[in-house]
Amino acid sequence: MTRRTIFFVSDQTGVTAETLGHSLLTQFEGHEFDLVTLPFLDTLDKVDDALRLIADRAAEQSVRPIIFSTLVQDHLRERFQPDKGMLIDFFATFLPSLEVQLHSKSTHKAGRAHGLVDSGRYDQRMDATNFALNNDDGARIKDYDRADIILVGVSRSGKTPTCLYLGLTYGVYAANYPLSEDELESGKLPVALQNNLDKLYGLTIESDRLQQIRKERRSTGKYSTVQQVSFEIRAAEAMFAKWKIPFIDTTKSSIEELASTILANTGVERRIRP
Amino acid sequence: MTRRTIFFVSDQTGVTAETLGHSLLTQFEGHEFDLVTLPFLDTLDKVDDALRLIADRAAEQSVRPIIFSTLVQDHLRERFQPDKGMLIDFFATFLPSLEVQLHSKSTHKAGRAHGLVDSGRYDQRMDATNFALNNDDGARIKDYDRADIILVGVSRSGKTPTCLYLGLTYGVYAANYPLSEDELESGKLPVALQNNLDKLYGLTIESDRLQQIRKERRSTGKYSTVQQVSFEIRAAEAMFAKWKIPFIDTTKSSIEELASTILANTGVERRIRP
Repeated sequence: MTRRTIFFVSDQTGVTAETLGHSLLTQFEGHEFDLVTLPFLDTLDKVDDALRLIADRAAEQSVRPIIFSTLVQDHLRERFQPDKGMLIDFFATFLPSLEVQLHSKSTHKAGRAHGLVDSGRYDQRMDATNFALNNDDGARIKDYDRADIILVGVSRSGKTPTCLYLGLTYGVYAANYPLSEDELESGKLPVALQNNLDKLYGLTIESDRLQQIRKERRSTGKYSTVQQVSFEIRAAEAMFAKWKIPFIDTTKSSIEELASTILANTGVERRIRP
Repeated sequence: MTRRTIFFVSDQTGVTAETLGHSLLTQFEGHEFDLVTLPFLDTLDKVDDALRLIADRAAEQSVRPIIFSTLVQDHLRERFQPDKGMLIDFFATFLPSLEVQLHSKSTHKAGRAHGLVDSGRYDQRMDATNFALNNDDGARIKDYDRADIILVGVSRSGKTPTCLYLGLTYGVYAANYPLSEDELESGKLPVALQNNLDKLYGLTIESDRLQQIRKERRSTGKYSTVQQVSFEIRAAEAMFAKWKIPFIDTTKSSIEELASTILANTGVERRIRP
């Protein structure tokens, strides 16, 4: 199958163009795409360079490239007219009808979506990210009063990245606590967790996948044996049941999906918005 | 000014609807919006609940809500017809022309954009995130050979969140090293950094902003005085010049923008795609 080139073109970071293009393209199966991001096209010269690059690629391939653009400044958008290729212009598509609805003209200024600086929002992200770092892996259980949520689970079930993502993306204070072998055997929860039962959310994972992850980390010893991994997962799920802790299986979910699901299921409010 | 309610509606996480809607709305100034995300509308009952909620809100307010939808499953999309409000349906807008271009039908299956699980991609994100955690704040300079990039700067200039973002989002191995008072005074770089000069990227920040950030962390002592903050920033920028380290000012940039700019300027390739 011929690989088709997909361009993401932006006068800013390109994050929005990539998000849009990616969600649309994942709706098509059996295609192979080469993805090229051309960010920060904020002068006519850079736009011209991008047009040449796209034309060269189009000339080399038998299939037309698809170009997702979030160029917003008018003079750049007007210049950006690829000869070959399908152009999907995000702002041109939606801004006119939004202008009618909002009874106002859009600014057509670049750098507003992801470059917008709001120091309160930045501080919130930083504070929540630092909270996740300081409260990783059961490091500081005395801070649990400040936590919005405390993820519990066995080692390598996905707690740390989910907490970091919750902090960086949503400004939510997320701690995590790894269930120890003693706790898994006795079914007891430490007092600091018992005092915050309503903040607990469990992560579980399929044993094959956990074994694979653990083997990459430490290939020998009990840590990554089938027996140990299966025991820990069974015991953790028994604890979730005993203590009525809601939980989610991380095996088939991305970090984005885990974070959104946990917020939706717990009702924990995001402290910042995208 | 009347606040207008904006709904982000999705049969998945809602992350795409939020990103796209946010990019469009930031093009309009002087409006106040109440943002409501309705994720995981994956059954007809949940869609009906959402329709009721939107109708109730519309009845309460004098301005029509705007609804950004990334519902992708046909039966849900067909049911989701709000009586009042402006509906922007991302998939309905773009999929038909993409189907023509790609000579194939889209799958209309949910859960592909953010729920798509690719264990190689997950492992890469995890490995890069762990690398950022282990190499935070100059913790483990012996790993610098494995780094794609090493951020240097004074304390609280934004190194840690940028490294974590680079790992979580792009799978890039990013370490960071805080310049010490000794180094700032002498202008010397530790050998581990001198051996990796081509991987260094500097972060700087305006002194007012740095002082503000540091005061929130530690309100007394030399750490957050005007004199200390100004000295450190001047000395760091002098080091960037002396060692020919490219650098970026973090004061007016979001983490997303910093990460994209650093990748674009260094040519470091993302190891994973959104």
